[in-house]
Amino acid sequence: MARYAIGVDYGTNSCRALLVDIDNGNEVVASVFPYPSGDDGILLDPKDPNLARQNAQDYIDGFLTTVAEVVSKSGVDPNSVVGIGVDTTGSSPIPVDKNGRALSLDPQFKDHLASYCWLWKDHTSFAEAAEITEKADAMGRPFLAKCGGTYSSEWFWSKILHCARVAPEVFEAAYSWVELCDFVPAYITGNTDPLTLKRSICAAGHKAMFSDEWGGLPDKEFLTALDPRLADLRDRLYTAAYPSDEPMGGLTDEVAAKVGLRPGTVVAVGAFDAHMGAVGSGIKPGVLVKIMGTSTCDCMIAPEGAKVADIPGVCGIVPGSVVPSRIGIEAGQSAVGDIFNWFVDHLNPEEFGGENAHAKLTEVAAQLKPGESGLLALDWNNGNRTILVDPLLSGLLIGQTLHTSAPEVFRALVEATAYGALTIIKRIEEYGVMIDEVVNCGGIAEKNPMVMQIYADVCNRPMRISRSAQTPALGAAIFGAVAAGAVEDISAAQAKMTGTKDVVYHPIPENVAVYERLYALYLALHDAFGGVNKAADLSGVMKELISIRQAARN
Amino acid sequence: MARYAIGVDYGTNSCRALLVDIDNGNEVVASVFPYPSGDDGILLDPKDPNLARQNAQDYIDGFLTTVAEVVSKSGVDPNSVVGIGVDTTGSSPIPVDKNGRALSLDPQFKDHLASYCWLWKDHTSFAEAAEITEKADAMGRPFLAKCGGTYSSEWFWSKILHCARVAPEVFEAAYSWVELCDFVPAYITGNTDPLTLKRSICAAGHKAMFSDEWGGLPDKEFLTALDPRLADLRDRLYTAAYPSDEPMGGLTDEVAAKVGLRPGTVVAVGAFDAHMGAVGSGIKPGVLVKIMGTSTCDCMIAPEGAKVADIPGVCGIVPGSVVPSRIGIEAGQSAVGDIFNWFVDHLNPEEFGGENAHAKLTEVAAQLKPGESGLLALDWNNGNRTILVDPLLSGLLIGQTLHTSAPEVFRALVEATAYGALTIIKRIEEYGVMIDEVVNCGGIAEKNPMVMQIYADVCNRPMRISRSAQTPALGAAIFGAVAAGAVEDISAAQAKMTGTKDVVYHPIPENVAVYERLYALYLALHDAFGGVNKAADLSGVMKELISIRQAARN
Repeated sequence: MARYAIGVDYGTNSCRALLVDIDNGNEVVASVFPYPSGDDGILLDPKDPNLARQNAQDYIDGFLTTVAEVVSKSGVDPNSVVGIGVDTTGSSPIPVDKNGRALSLDPQFKDHLASYCWLWKDHTSFAEAAEITEKADAMGRPFLAKCGGTYSSEWFWSKILHCARVAPEVFEAAYSWVELCDFVPAYITGNTDPLTLKRSICAAGHKAMFSDEWGGLPDKEFLTALDPRLADLRDRLYTAAYPSDEPMGGLTDEVAAKVGLRPGTVVAVGAFDAHMGAVGSGIKPGVLVKIMGTSTCDCMIAPEGAKVADIPGVCGIVPGSVVPSRIGIEAGQSAVGDIFNWFVDHLNPEEFGGENAHAKLTEVAAQLKPGESGLLALDWNNGNRTILVDPLLSGLLIGQTLHTSAPEVFRALVEATAYGALTIIKRIEEYGVMIDEVVNCGGIAEKNPMVMQIYADVCNRPMRISRSAQTPALGAAIFGAVAAGAVEDISAAQAKMTGTKDVVYHPIPENVAVYERLYALYLALHDAFGGVNKAADLSGVMKELISIRQAARN
Repeated sequence: MARYAIGVDYGTNSCRALLVDIDNGNEVVASVFPYPSGDDGILLDPKDPNLARQNAQDYIDGFLTTVAEVVSKSGVDPNSVVGIGVDTTGSSPIPVDKNGRALSLDPQFKDHLASYCWLWKDHTSFAEAAEITEKADAMGRPFLAKCGGTYSSEWFWSKILHCARVAPEVFEAAYSWVELCDFVPAYITGNTDPLTLKRSICAAGHKAMFSDEWGGLPDKEFLTALDPRLADLRDRLYTAAYPSDEPMGGLTDEVAAKVGLRPGTVVAVGAFDAHMGAVGSGIKPGVLVKIMGTSTCDCMIAPEGAKVADIPGVCGIVPGSVVPSRIGIEAGQSAVGDIFNWFVDHLNPEEFGGENAHAKLTEVAAQLKPGESGLLALDWNNGNRTILVDPLLSGLLIGQTLHTSAPEVFRALVEATAYGALTIIKRIEEYGVMIDEVVNCGGIAEKNPMVMQIYADVCNRPMRISRSAQTPALGAAIFGAVAAGAVEDISAAQAKMTGTKDVVYHPIPENVAVYERLYALYLALHDAFGGVNKAADLSGVMKELISIRQAARN
């Protein structure tokens, strides 16, 4: 009899359930639920563009709706569904009461945005992030060594500290705080006690400065220095965190009835979407999985038994965060698809405009030879996550003439994101984690061969495309199957359930040679404007671009 | 009885005659003649984008057609037309035979592009320009001290040397070479002998390294080092050069008959369009005249009796070149209107596109506060003429976010050209020539108040607009009147015939303060990419732009 697992993937605007055959990875049926609250699922504050919250009720309704639909549409025997995995955005912490119920579900907090889920892209807490970085440094704490040296406004403690300051009544009412990736598995299994529910090592290690190296969460002295109320809160958080091959528990009778599954169906501990997506893309040592969307998340795992040094600028090195018993490494680029979209939305002339703007630009840009435009860009329109960890950076375009065309600029922006990708690879390899090839997933990777060829040429590594178009949900299903004991381990499940497409983009040697020259210039600008080199000689940059251009045109 | 002068202005694509009342500057009637040859008057070589030539027959036909038309349309008594002045583009040298006839008019050279006029923007001779600069330096010659230290591919000797190399048969057939601004007055007065026709000091001093300081044209030893044939040619060029208040001669009977004027009507020595345009704009000490078109030409004159040091990067300091007996100073920006046009043609989205694109962009851009976009640009899309004298530079835009809009970029480009203008002013003032205000002429200055206000705020000086819309032709008419003795001198003629519009753009103090901060960043980029500072600290540039942006938005 065929056996199935269900992965439930909570994205920024919707959630999706995917029912997968665990013996061959066949994706039987999927169901999507757009969050009904707010603006595309996001609660906004017209007075503060940094604010982004979500309604926990949407998460609950999303689970019930999508899982019920995949079960009923597939027509499979509920007994053949062995397990469920859940992945979510993060860090997206939710204030909860003593029973683990989201505060916003209490009518008294209904109108208080601070009681809702603080979505990953909420940037209200930038001042607190800077304060945490500064205090960790001043007090000689090692907490940031595992997350690139700089704490982010998007992360757990920044948001909680900001809440304590701007909405003390919510902070006081919150017994604890739970990441979204923990909230959903806790809710559907009824293991909602904040003190005992199994927290995700992925969220804890990457976003909450949790590490066994220093005894779990940051110590009370440090938290007191930030705010004594945080030190008190520490006792109501957690002292252990778990990988996602562990079961959180079994579906409650009530939830099982609503979705048409067997009560007690195993639910795995949750994790972040990118990490489960990496698993769904077949991550293994030597392979970088690049989840390419508006921004990217880059995941790697170290070889078995290998240690990984702290890598400056790399925002997460956490044992077990991607695959159990392997060290997981997370990096990322602040904007990739977002940069292409920005260009199309704001600077694209009518000639290349309209519905297929990306395709029209790509058609012409793909005809250009590397270096032929004479252009070079930095990919910092939304700051730089890895390796500079600096949101106060911006875009740069150099080499324009009076003939520079829109497709040339578009291609330069694509190339810029490829240089950003290479910079991450180089930094990680410098610290001993080698990357032989890249598996890409996401719409850009699937739809735009020019982008993939440029990445192959710039990075001088083969680029593959994940076979699945919904790798986070597939990865979640894999964890559901393994947590249920239906497959031996993640590696065995990956062998059965994941793969890449037949097409492989191999580096073209003559392009690689040109991009080496261009990358040297990118690096010069990167270091000069990124603060790495404070005595930069940029006098030759424009001339070298012209020289490369002339060589390309001959 | 009213008295008139005619100015004839030879532009890049057409020539224009203007009949002016010399007692009040009233512009009675104008006539325009688009050059019929080639592509918009320019002969091109599909194999070489650097090549740009013109047909001398167009110049002759243009004179006859336009002058005949203004005479007949105005209905003035031919005896009341006292004089004619001629201004042209330059350096635009023409190979001529012993009689001063353009070689291309000889049927045997009809198909040979090297025999035509080498238009100012012909860039085929870049290698020769570099060689001249290098030789002057190596041989310790002072020739380039008066033209910014670098010889240009657009100038007289570069073009002739290139001709000697690539088209020796044309070079051998050419008895001499004549600048276009000398060719026309010579032709219409019959003073066509290359050895005796009065050459323009403006062309000789700014483009041919002619100076009384070193005995006229460059010495034979120097020319021999470049090519012995140039040393031979030196004997068939000139040993004196003249300002344009000197008469070249009187109209020949034949030409006079064709245009309906009195034979012997005085024709002044010619000069370049920008210089005569400066006179038509009322140039005087303390006033910079900015002729703003696709590029700009900036003209100043030193106070009477003042000496002017050699100014590095300023491409011309020549006694008598603008106004007789005053030292004329010429500078310029390689692209101004061209940059705005490039943006509109290549990167402007449909929303702001169409026929009134500049106006649509300006309408939104004018609402922005200085610094509000967070953007900064360099104005080097066509290289940098003054003060870096380097064609191998390119554009740069910095500060883009994911929200940067087309009007923001457009405004940043306008501001970039204003920073370029200020850089020229500062360099000239450093060497003791003070600039209190700027008189602008050209379509942009007349039509775009936003541009003028930005220039006033960036340069912290009042911006005025020339009253005439055709200042080069007006300036030429002024020289015609003075050369004929109908007005005492240039200054007296300017007092009668020139003026500025009522509107004056005064600097707005709070804008000036913001632009001071932005200009400091422009200068940092200018020096780093322009090769002035080879140990640049640019680590704060993006952060300062964000800080200025935030201040502007509060």
